[in-house]
Amino acid sequence: MQNLVERLLAKDIRAVAHAISIAENGRQSSSHLLKQIYSNVGNAYRIGITGPPGAGKSTIVNQAAKIIRNKNKRVGIIAVDPTSPFTGGALLGDRIRMSEIGGDKDIFIRSMASRGSLGGLSKKVIDAADILDAAGYDYILLETVGVGQSELDIVKAADTTIVVLVPESGDSIQAMKAGLMEIADIFVINKSDRPGAEQALASLKTIMMMRTHDEETWIPGIIKTVATENQGIPELFAEINRHKEFLDDKNLLLKKREKQTKNRIKEIVEDYIRDELWNDDRENSLDSSLEKVVLGKLSPYRIAEELIENFKKEI
Amino acid sequence: MQNLVERLLAKDIRAVAHAISIAENGRQSSSHLLKQIYSNVGNAYRIGITGPPGAGKSTIVNQAAKIIRNKNKRVGIIAVDPTSPFTGGALLGDRIRMSEIGGDKDIFIRSMASRGSLGGLSKKVIDAADILDAAGYDYILLETVGVGQSELDIVKAADTTIVVLVPESGDSIQAMKAGLMEIADIFVINKSDRPGAEQALASLKTIMMMRTHDEETWIPGIIKTVATENQGIPELFAEINRHKEFLDDKNLLLKKREKQTKNRIKEIVEDYIRDELWNDDRENSLDSSLEKVVLGKLSPYRIAEELIENFKKEI
Repeated sequence: MQNLVERLLAKDIRAVAHAISIAENGRQSSSHLLKQIYSNVGNAYRIGITGPPGAGKSTIVNQAAKIIRNKNKRVGIIAVDPTSPFTGGALLGDRIRMSEIGGDKDIFIRSMASRGSLGGLSKKVIDAADILDAAGYDYILLETVGVGQSELDIVKAADTTIVVLVPESGDSIQAMKAGLMEIADIFVINKSDRPGAEQALASLKTIMMMRTHDEETWIPGIIKTVATENQGIPELFAEINRHKEFLDDKNLLLKKREKQTKNRIKEIVEDYIRDELWNDDRENSLDSSLEKVVLGKLSPYRIAEELIENFKKEI
Repeated sequence: MQNLVERLLAKDIRAVAHAISIAENGRQSSSHLLKQIYSNVGNAYRIGITGPPGAGKSTIVNQAAKIIRNKNKRVGIIAVDPTSPFTGGALLGDRIRMSEIGGDKDIFIRSMASRGSLGGLSKKVIDAADILDAAGYDYILLETVGVGQSELDIVKAADTTIVVLVPESGDSIQAMKAGLMEIADIFVINKSDRPGAEQALASLKTIMMMRTHDEETWIPGIIKTVATENQGIPELFAEINRHKEFLDDKNLLLKKREKQTKNRIKEIVEDYIRDELWNDDRENSLDSSLEKVVLGKLSPYRIAEELIENFKKEI
């Protein structure tokens, strides 16, 4: 392990890949590893990119990576695949497109799946981001589909969060995806050469105007792009820098990261305790009482109390 | 309290309203109340209605309530208001429309807000459904906006879950809302007199065809409605009955309710333990170490371990 940490800090790509696999697979080894690199974490700038499937997130990530490389900075990309069978195909396509930038040794790309993992996805992705951070990547791009709590938790862990929409995402989607609206530092209307881009822009502006405005509050910029043609990507990057400077000027970056760290530590603690709580014994004990509850012979609250008492005694 | 329970079981509407307020406000009193009524719970049929804002959920609930009353059955409605400021207005309008059926004493309507509650919303709503169940309502309609985990948890706790879409909700939304697709027992395409209804129907059918088909698996029906004109609502009700009979025939209702009960008990237990875990002392101790973590002077995993040790010692 010591050797792995040394190689990781020396920017050895295979060590990075191995370390992320450790973060993905095991709680204990992951915790052991992360405890050895914490003092090297905190220098990278983390950018979250989210939005509905088909909005062009991967293309934007791809183009942003090229801009970062042109500045001679190193970039790590973590793309989170959703579990849903409905979107699997599109994402596979995205990953293939991304191979265009795959030859550059200063771009590290990793796809992480939520399939099969019982929660803890955001924890794993944030651990992986810490690993990339410690390995000296200057920018970390976290790409997720804007569906589900753990996906949102991931992009909320970024310094700048970009929500990608397309002109077709009309008013109703925007309202529907209120969870997305509230986490955006920057909106991108991608595929903005399609009809409806101006209306989408106008409706986003209207929503922005409904927000509170004061000096401490960042007003999300709205950038129109055609990512496949590289249109609007330099402007997007300028907006990212404007947001970064805003956070720096107002001394908000530290504050933001403290809040994220709080959520992260709470998740680590709660994951651990949940695992202890639902050991085989208590899981079986719960299973064996379900029929009685459904048939009105036992109160669900009585069962819950018994499980709590048992947990308190045993932990 | 004993008096309240007696009045509740005697179908006293004011007792029902009071009991739901208890379920909404306090954990201990709620648990005490629920433990007194469990043997009267389990007779009502629970229908969840969800979908994006503006899809017409409330109108459908309204019309469904009328059909239930025409069968001389009693109906309880719980409408969950989302916290988002973007949709508040529309929902207020819905509630006003619903006053059309508000005069009937065998229709009980209650609006529950997620605003300000730190989690636990689905727990409260399911408790409220148990109260209505014990008070002899034959049908319980649970209406929520299909955004956010707790909203999904609520409709997942129904016997039959209806997902309401509109013709404008095209392919991309459907993919985006994969979480909704997977919980639907019945799809409604409301406002189906608008352009695009046939395409929406076709694309839903395609998605259904991608699913596994066996005798134990229910294939969701797709019903076109114009709820404001009462078009398609009798057909929707027939489909609800077809689903109910399917569950009865295959002996799946008990199984489904057992699974829901398991989730519910786990949530009760985890809520309780999370409250014990994040008492003021540990919350303060966490807050005071955040800056050090962000500045790379402490590992988040070290802090997590200390909090876990402290919790184990004290509980």
